[in-house]
Amino acid sequence: MNCNQIHEWPRSTYRSEIMHEEKHALVSHPRDPRFLALRSLQTPQGRFRTGLYLIEGIRHVARAIEHHAPIQSLFIDPSILSNPFGRKLAHRLRKSGIPSLQLSRPLYRELTLAAAPQGIGAVVRQHWTPIASIRPERNSFWLAVESIDSPGNLGTIIRTAEATGVAGILLIGTDADPFDPAAVRASMGSLFSQRLVKCTAREFTDWARSSGASVIASSPTGLLDYRALRCRWPAVLLMGSEKHGLSEHLMETSDFTVRLPMLGSCDSINVAVATGVLLYEIFNQRRGL
Amino acid sequence: MNCNQIHEWPRSTYRSEIMHEEKHALVSHPRDPRFLALRSLQTPQGRFRTGLYLIEGIRHVARAIEHHAPIQSLFIDPSILSNPFGRKLAHRLRKSGIPSLQLSRPLYRELTLAAAPQGIGAVVRQHWTPIASIRPERNSFWLAVESIDSPGNLGTIIRTAEATGVAGILLIGTDADPFDPAAVRASMGSLFSQRLVKCTAREFTDWARSSGASVIASSPTGLLDYRALRCRWPAVLLMGSEKHGLSEHLMETSDFTVRLPMLGSCDSINVAVATGVLLYEIFNQRRGL
Repeated sequence: MNCNQIHEWPRSTYRSEIMHEEKHALVSHPRDPRFLALRSLQTPQGRFRTGLYLIEGIRHVARAIEHHAPIQSLFIDPSILSNPFGRKLAHRLRKSGIPSLQLSRPLYRELTLAAAPQGIGAVVRQHWTPIASIRPERNSFWLAVESIDSPGNLGTIIRTAEATGVAGILLIGTDADPFDPAAVRASMGSLFSQRLVKCTAREFTDWARSSGASVIASSPTGLLDYRALRCRWPAVLLMGSEKHGLSEHLMETSDFTVRLPMLGSCDSINVAVATGVLLYEIFNQRRGL
Repeated sequence: MNCNQIHEWPRSTYRSEIMHEEKHALVSHPRDPRFLALRSLQTPQGRFRTGLYLIEGIRHVARAIEHHAPIQSLFIDPSILSNPFGRKLAHRLRKSGIPSLQLSRPLYRELTLAAAPQGIGAVVRQHWTPIASIRPERNSFWLAVESIDSPGNLGTIIRTAEATGVAGILLIGTDADPFDPAAVRASMGSLFSQRLVKCTAREFTDWARSSGASVIASSPTGLLDYRALRCRWPAVLLMGSEKHGLSEHLMETSDFTVRLPMLGSCDSINVAVATGVLLYEIFNQRRGL
């Protein structure tokens, strides 16, 4: 094709073709600023600075769309995006005006923890709810976690929270980041539907008191077997970190402190499992079982 | 010190000093065969060939001793083993005749997944119980898992199994390796106290039938809400893999198929959390709650 031929095209086709080309340029240089901007979202600083985070995989992108998550842009590895549903998602998002970047396989690979990347990912805007704006409904239940260390555990907890009908998750302290790639991955898309609240320990206790929610703390030294608990609504389950449990201040402000009984030489179980057992117990009480 | 001085030492002191030197030689070359032998235990092949596995950290070593796990040798990074209890453990094991190897920091680092290695690790012999030798006691309950993909999930499950009084764990299919470093780490020492049985799906169903155990399978398509289950003892809870669930053959041979109810757009929760919720339910029934 020579220049003359191009000039013979209708103007509109020519322009749309150029735009198509620009949108779909393959980024393959590891110092390309567009790639570096994406990669920076893997770090806490990058996420904090921009208020954005990364998701990867067809299921995650589909659930982000389903929950109207604010998708800012797409990144695609065309060499591995073979799934027809995944290609349809990409097409649909591009058509709705979401910018899309094509990456070479090694660059795409760097942006995901997945063992088998699926060739479609997105940049999404973080969603936070200010604590002052939430008034718990009468029979709602909430989850509060203090400084969970492992983002994988946090993501797993967010997934169970959706399954058990938790109204929202309060993250006490600044350590836990639900938008860390490992948390996002473990949440399996439940992140998009959850109300997330960042607060200090003081803000949490003020909120719980003013909203009339009963606070159920979990601790290995709790006096009450968790099966003996009878929930008053609204309720909030309060979980501590893997290593240090709950801080004394928070423990003191709770209405009940429950323990999971344990046999053998176990003095603790995984925090995501413990949260799951307790959330299902509260869920069962709410559904009258 | 010159040769003459050495010859002036009492014979016994001299020999014990030499042995001490040998035992505590610092291995720092990455091609040292003693280090390579340790490192090979991080691979499935290395573990399969030798029947050994690695543990790391004070808690793990202490619990291995507590449960009389067959410790074969120790490996130490003297530059980071500062904890007095950890040093005491090392001393006690060496005194009882367990060989010990001192490693340089970079080599030691390669043998552990821990973010903060503790400077003491051990090689332990795997313990497997043949399926033919187990006869379930009348009110015992067992756990069977089919091809769990993530060793971290498997280790977390083993930890919850100890806490809830599971009599033993049957691993159906050859994929799941409880001695994988990530499984060992997540089990937090519960591995040592658990009876572990490797079997095929056919061996499992034959065993369940002949032992009279009721088989409770878990599936998102199960007809019975898990809270409606009334256990008959002995019982065995049967869990499938993260991605594929239970194979049809195993599903068909179960006495009950229970599901965990889920709200939101969740169609599944993490397999270690689901196992935890179900194990606690069965544990509660056994303790009459």
